[in-house]
Amino acid sequence: MVGTVVKIEAVLLVLPLIVSLIYKEACAKDFLVSIAIALASGFALTLISRPGNKVIYAKEGFVIVSLAWVALSVVGALPFYISGEIPSFIDAIFETVSGFTTTGASILTDVEAMSKGLLFWRSFTHWIGGMGVLVFVMAIVPKVSDRTIHILRAEAPGPVVGKIVPKMKQTARILYFIYIALTFIEMILLLAGGMPLFDSVVHAVGTAGTGGFGIKADSLASYSPYIQWVITAFMFIFGVNFNLYYFMLIRKFKSAVKNEELITYLIIVFLSITAITINIRPLYEGVSESLRHAAFQVGAIISTTGFATADFNQWPGLSKTILLLLMFVGGCAGSTAGGFKVSRVVMLFKTIKRELQKLLHPRAVATIRLDGKRVDEKTISSLGSYLAIYALFFCVVVFLLGFDAFDLETNISVAASCVNNIGPGLGSAGPAASYAGFSPFSKILLSATMLLGRLEIIPLVLTFSPSTWTKK
Amino acid sequence: MVGTVVKIEAVLLVLPLIVSLIYKEACAKDFLVSIAIALASGFALTLISRPGNKVIYAKEGFVIVSLAWVALSVVGALPFYISGEIPSFIDAIFETVSGFTTTGASILTDVEAMSKGLLFWRSFTHWIGGMGVLVFVMAIVPKVSDRTIHILRAEAPGPVVGKIVPKMKQTARILYFIYIALTFIEMILLLAGGMPLFDSVVHAVGTAGTGGFGIKADSLASYSPYIQWVITAFMFIFGVNFNLYYFMLIRKFKSAVKNEELITYLIIVFLSITAITINIRPLYEGVSESLRHAAFQVGAIISTTGFATADFNQWPGLSKTILLLLMFVGGCAGSTAGGFKVSRVVMLFKTIKRELQKLLHPRAVATIRLDGKRVDEKTISSLGSYLAIYALFFCVVVFLLGFDAFDLETNISVAASCVNNIGPGLGSAGPAASYAGFSPFSKILLSATMLLGRLEIIPLVLTFSPSTWTKK
Repeated sequence: MVGTVVKIEAVLLVLPLIVSLIYKEACAKDFLVSIAIALASGFALTLISRPGNKVIYAKEGFVIVSLAWVALSVVGALPFYISGEIPSFIDAIFETVSGFTTTGASILTDVEAMSKGLLFWRSFTHWIGGMGVLVFVMAIVPKVSDRTIHILRAEAPGPVVGKIVPKMKQTARILYFIYIALTFIEMILLLAGGMPLFDSVVHAVGTAGTGGFGIKADSLASYSPYIQWVITAFMFIFGVNFNLYYFMLIRKFKSAVKNEELITYLIIVFLSITAITINIRPLYEGVSESLRHAAFQVGAIISTTGFATADFNQWPGLSKTILLLLMFVGGCAGSTAGGFKVSRVVMLFKTIKRELQKLLHPRAVATIRLDGKRVDEKTISSLGSYLAIYALFFCVVVFLLGFDAFDLETNISVAASCVNNIGPGLGSAGPAASYAGFSPFSKILLSATMLLGRLEIIPLVLTFSPSTWTKK
Repeated sequence: MVGTVVKIEAVLLVLPLIVSLIYKEACAKDFLVSIAIALASGFALTLISRPGNKVIYAKEGFVIVSLAWVALSVVGALPFYISGEIPSFIDAIFETVSGFTTTGASILTDVEAMSKGLLFWRSFTHWIGGMGVLVFVMAIVPKVSDRTIHILRAEAPGPVVGKIVPKMKQTARILYFIYIALTFIEMILLLAGGMPLFDSVVHAVGTAGTGGFGIKADSLASYSPYIQWVITAFMFIFGVNFNLYYFMLIRKFKSAVKNEELITYLIIVFLSITAITINIRPLYEGVSESLRHAAFQVGAIISTTGFATADFNQWPGLSKTILLLLMFVGGCAGSTAGGFKVSRVVMLFKTIKRELQKLLHPRAVATIRLDGKRVDEKTISSLGSYLAIYALFFCVVVFLLGFDAFDLETNISVAASCVNNIGPGLGSAGPAASYAGFSPFSKILLSATMLLGRLEIIPLVLTFSPSTWTKK
């Protein structure tokens, strides 16, 4: 399966090859070399002895997903490294992991000097990663459709695996269709605003994957307000559970609108934008300008995209605090966004409320409901464990970043940004800066952090724990 | 009951009165006025209609504890305010709450200018708060002994209410005896090191309560290495579960030494001291000096005392990061320390481990054991909820501090420091600075934070939630 993924990646690498041929760039040959290597290793992997037993258990599922991501990242880094545009292999890996995990954290200090082919590939990794390469694989490769439930468990972003139609393959196709359609609509709206074709494509795929790699040193600051608003809207759109769009497609508007997670998401967004607009008002010329910047940055952070129209590291403390807290919220489950997920936040609040009620009325039996449906106790107890793992993981990353030379604000925000797959941090890794200054150790650490964050920690831990590989 | 607590406080105020008489200070009359007010309001409160039903339910228990702490703080602030040495009433409340909650965060910018009587009272509030005023009350006032289980639930620091002997009253007396004995031993060891009597008393009670109010501008930096080592040792000692000392008293050394929480506590302490000693080595003259400062600061933070021998805000990032993370660990359950508690950290690790095992072997039934005893599922699920409440509470404090003018490093560390009852933070509220620069809003917020942290959040939330006061 890992071999299949790498072969598909080889096919996907044809797209940036075409881009570099159009612009007559030297990196075309580097893409050719990378494709050759990808194909060779892909075929080699599929040739390795395959066991007779084709049933995939949870453990194998977790391992496949994790290894597939690692393989994708190594192969995806080849064009950057071979072309010499990112001379350090660690940096190339960092940039590619950041792409596939839809983080958007960059080590590039001069992004405008990159060739168009590589810029396209860089943003395109967001698009591939966004929907989850394996959902993608499922839609294309029908033969795996029967044994995919465990893979999806490790892959699907968020606690709710959307069983919107019974057949897995069909689910994947529907999500895939919605994803492509929304990307195209955004691209057309950007073109309509006078954005060049290349820029429109790159930003549309970057928004769709909730990635955030830009192609200008100031991200989106130099584009027109219209374009900034379009991207703001689509960042929010790609942060919403895709099942809701499916419900809207089949005209079940009521189910879509009554969704508790969506309502909470909108409330958080509304309050954050209002507070920041007021807070940054003195920095900008009018309310409309500060509203635009507030909405854009809130969208960029909560959807874990990470584009920027303003250097929010220069904003007052309150706005920075709100953005830092939003980093931990993340988008809705079942979207392309990363983070802790709004639905988990909703569930935590309900658990807290129940716990307090239990203290007052110890004998009362209270069930927790989400969207009117009862949530079973196992899910609630797993949520507590997930919070513990998440908090511990975050603390470990902050601790290990301590070995580098940056201040605590930088380290805490960078850890938050990478755990939640956002991109820019604060302090020395703010939107106007890059990750170039970190040590190789920190870059490897943060690459692993982005992968762990994207896979919601557990699968990768299991893959690299000894007990997975010793006896069953 | 609240009236009784206030009356006892009036009696306790006689001690600083005596101190100020010895030093012939003007503040003696302010103590007299405060005692009069405390007695008057105490009697007034005990005269208010008492209901026929004397059974205390969980809800009433929580309310009593919370109101007692609030009443104690208001009355305890009177001497500071009446004497004019802390001219702002909000500041006086902040300082007193900080004292009773054993936090040790101070708004004083010139502590050496304070009169001895007030300095003694300030540190003595740590000692009163340390053991929990209500355990104290229980040991003195026998008549309440039958209905105290619910009070202890709200009051006892940490998840384990030590049922070391069946009778509650006797438990309280034993803990009380250990507490006084240890305080005296520390005082004598400090005197033996040539510390003046007043300083010895003040620092002994400050260490016992894991408080941290000092009487010099540089906390303990100007005292001899011997004195610093004595205080280091006692900070660690007061961070350990008091039940263990009881086991040692009755010669059950095995139970004391095999305690999982204690072992984890010692491992964390050892690793932190080693890492910091190496990290700060270039700043000091020799290994012994950097070891002394590392051990002192680790002890001050993990035991949530908050004394300082060095301005650790000037230390390199790694050491600051370790200290910030230690703030969240806190001491052992059943000690006078605040924080999340080591036993909870141990339990969280065990829960995480089980959750990962469950993913690999979904049908296996794994129980969690602590010190060989099975932990029931309710406790584990409560732990998850507590973590959620704790994390949410921390985020809310960080957010509200955002309205003030300080940077994120200051706000995050100050929130961590007050939630966990430590004292100094980092940045603009480091050990060499004070909380004087915060706005009145932030000071009130932080006073509430210290109280919530001390009572482990839940009781105070319930006390001030409308549903507690409406129908039964």
